Order: sequence, then structure tokens, then C-alpha cells
Amino acid sequence: SLAHRCHHRSPAMLDVPFLPFCAFLGALGLLCVAMVGTWCQHWRGGFSLDGSSRTFNWHPVLMVTGLVVLYGAAALVYRIPNTWSGPKLPWKVLHGSLALGAFVLTVLGLAAVFCFHNSQGTPNMYSLHSWMGLATVLLFSCQWAAGFGAFLLPWAPTWLRALYKPIHVFFGSTILMLSVASCVSGINEKLFFSLKNGTTAYKLLPAEAVFANTLGLLILSFGVLVVAALARPSWKRPDSDSPDSRQVQDTLGA
Amino acid sequence: SLAHRCHHRSPAMLDVPFLPFCAFLGALGLLCVAMVGTWCQHWRGGFSLDGSSRTFNWHPVLMVTGLVVLYGAAALVYRIPNTWSGPKLPWKVLHGSLALGAFVLTVLGLAAVFCFHNSQGTPNMYSLHSWMGLATVLLFSCQWAAGFGAFLLPWAPTWLRALYKPIHVFFGSTILMLSVASCVSGINEKLFFSLKNGTTAYKLLPAEAVFANTLGLLILSFGVLVVAALARPSWKRPDSDSPDSRQVQDTLGA
Repeated sequence: SLAHRCHHRSPAMLDVPFLPFCAFLGALGLLCVAMVGTWCQHWRGGFSLDGSSRTFNWHPVLMVTGLVVLYGAAALVYRIPNTWSGPKLPWKVLHGSLALGAFVLTVLGLAAVFCFHNSQGTPNMYSLHSWMGLATVLLFSCQWAAGFGAFLLPWAPTWLRALYKPIHVFFGSTILMLSVASCVSGINEKLFFSLKNGTTAYKLLPAEAVFANTLGLLILSFGVLVVAALARPSWKRPDSDSPDSRQVQDTLGA
Repeated sequence: SLAHRCHHRSPAMLDVPFLPFCAFLGALGLLCVAMVGTWCQHWRGGFSLDGSSRTFNWHPVLMVTGLVVLYGAAALVYRIPNTWSGPKLPWKVLHGSLALGAFVLTVLGLAAVFCFHNSQGTPNMYSLHSWMGLATVLLFSCQWAAGFGAFLLPWAPTWLRALYKPIHVFFGSTILMLSVASCVSGINEKLFFSLKNGTTAYKLLPAEAVFANTLGLLILSFGVLVVAALARPSWKRPDSDSPDSRQVQDTLGA
């Protein structure tokens, strides 16, 4: 294996079991999706495909659902203890499929904002939010393609899998951090655009601003907790006992 | 020790030595500080203490310098191999002092924006950027106070140090991620405020927008690389051989 892993011996108080933590993360992720949908439906006019701001509204919903929540679920697959024994291929397929689903939602989310900008005559890709967001999506597409090529196609050589695996793991967490940073800058920007006048000005903190700021903090919490869960040594798949079988198992994905 | 650590056996190509990586991070951090100073000096009118936007300009400079770059330096102290043997107290004092310096700059950075808002009659603390930023600073102040109380004051019991250490390590990386997310949302927001008219509109991507967007991406890169360096197992302080001496060493900081 690339990493000679071993288990944490934490004091009892810190020994959170993975599955309840995962259930909590799932609930938090669903809350984020529900809140971004509620924000767009209740305050921003709902959804349509006519190129108006109601087309734009698909953008935050698809990005939070795809690039944050579904992406987080895909990233956590190998932390489920059931994946640690038996054939690994079904879990690889699950991991890749969830990530592909996240990627499809992300591309649709990009399409929504480009369609909105183009139909309004607004330039694309000028804000830091858009630069950071596009960099995130480009990294994600490289990550998915390289992961598919190295770990799902049968002909990648062992040394290549061994070399690429820690890179894939590193970018897995990095892309989630970038997507969360993109989400909060996007929510912040959208509130400045939308809340400008009279009693709904952002600076007067109307109900919509409190709601969407809270959504931003919940998305941040979700991202931090997923990255923390990924980094926790005792939740990583343990290597088997023999160093030699470990080497083969890990790199061949047995 | 809390974590029964062991060393990565990475393929040779991925074995980056810590000190050159650290020198690169230092150069990247200094570049971020130089760029945020240049942005404020060259495009935003420079610095003063008169409550105008020139007072505000201290805010981004102090936050990037304190809460990102100096904070990152403080976080990396225990990854320097020299800290792994010999007395630990001097390194603890260095870690705490760098973090205290980062905290002082951060508080001055908060003072700059509150002073600017108050003298302009603008409300404080309404945007998602401000909520996230204040949450980051509050977490940082708890982190510093708890770290000082548990690891530098002599009377904290061993079990408390052992319990608190992984929490301190977790929040160390989390606070840096939050501060980087706060920086990019703040730069994005400031550019929307500042670039509104004619040929300098943000959407037309004038030189200032390209410069500050690039700064945002460099700050993101700095944060990701520091968090990655902190997480890398082979760069962590190795435990000594005997489990018993290890337990005492780690928790007493010998």
C-alpha cells in the first residue's frame, strides 16, 4: 500500500462511530439542498427554462446538490466499513457513479448560469466566484476522467495506480473545499445583486438575507465535516495484515 | 500518544521534502501579501486612519497577512523536523507567539472595517462574508485561548491535553479553510462594490479585476497547500519507540 496506515487510539469521548456521523451528514446535506431550493422558490421567483433569472435559479440548486452534497456522498463511499472486505469493484462503481451524477448536475448548473448570462447580454467568467468555480469544475472533470482511467479500466498498470492514488485522494478533498468556497462566494454575490432596494436591502438583513447567510454557514459546515471525516485515520479502510498482500490488494483494488 | 502514527511509504516521485515545500509556501504567502498591498495601494487609493475607504484598505491587507499567511506559518511549526527532538517548550512558545501575532493582526483588520462602516453610517455584520469571517475569528480566539490554557500553562492535567490535542489539530486546519473562504468572498464582494462604472466595470474585467481575481486564486492555493502539508502523515512529528514514553512525551509535550 502507499500508506502504511494504522488506527488511532483516541480517548473514548472522541470515538465517534462512522455510521451515525454519516447519517448526521446526510441530514445536513439534505437540509442544504432543501434550503437552497426554498431560497430560490420562495424569494427568487422559482424555476423555469426561459433564460430569465428563474433559469439562473437552477444554478445554486444544482451546484449545492451536485458539487457539494452528492460529491460529498461519493467521496465518503470508501469510509463505509462494509467496503473494507469482499470484492471492491461494486464499491468502485458506486463511487464513480455518484461522482458522475455529481458531475452531470454540475455541468447542468453551469449551463443554467451561461444560458442566463447569454440571454441577458451579461458577460461570462469575470468574477472571482466564476474563476474559482470553473477551476473547481475543471479539476473535478480531470479527477473523474483520471480516476476512471486508472481505477476502473482494467489495463492501468499497478505502478500507475499506486502513484496516482494519493493524488486522487488529495484532490478529492481539495475539490470539495474549493466547491464550498465557490458556493459561499456565490451566495454572497447573489444577495448583493438581489437585495438592493428599500426595506429589502442586504444591509438591513431582511429574512431572505438571514436565511441565505445561514444556508452559506451550513454548506461550510457540511464541507468541513466531510473533509474531516475523509482525513480521520480510524475511518480509513485498514490494510490487511501481510505487507505483501497489502501492497497487491491496495494497488489492484482487490 | 493519541495517534499511533507511522510513516508513508510513497513512491519516490511523490516524496517532496518538507523544507523546499515550505520555502515555496513562504514565497507564495509573501506574494499574496505583496499583491493585496499592491491592490489597495495602486487601485484603491492607499492607506490612512481617517475612516474613509483608505481606512478600509487595511482590512484585506491585515486579514491576508494575519489570518492566512502568518496563521499558516504558525500552523506549520511542528512540521519542521528540528522540532521533533530536544525540548519542546521553545517550539510551543514559537507556535503560540506566531498565532498570537496572527490574532493581533486579525483584530486590527476587524477594527479597520468596523471603523470604516461606522464613520460611513453603514451597518456592520450583514453579509455572508461578515458572518463567516466573524465565525472564523471567534473560533480562532477560542483556539488560541484553549491552546494556551491546555498546552502552555503548566497545570493542565495530562488527560485534558490528550483529549484536547486532536480537537486543536482539527480546528487548526478548519479555521484556515474558513479564513481562506472568507478572503475570497471578501475580494469578490469588494470588486463588485468598487468596479461599477463605465470602462472599469467588473464585468468588463479591467486590469484590477484580473489582478485581484488572481490574488484570490493564489490565496486559495496557499490555504489548500498548507492544509495538505498539515495532513501529510510523513511530515508529522514521529512518536518515539516506547509506547509508554510516547504517551508521556506527547501529552506533556516533552
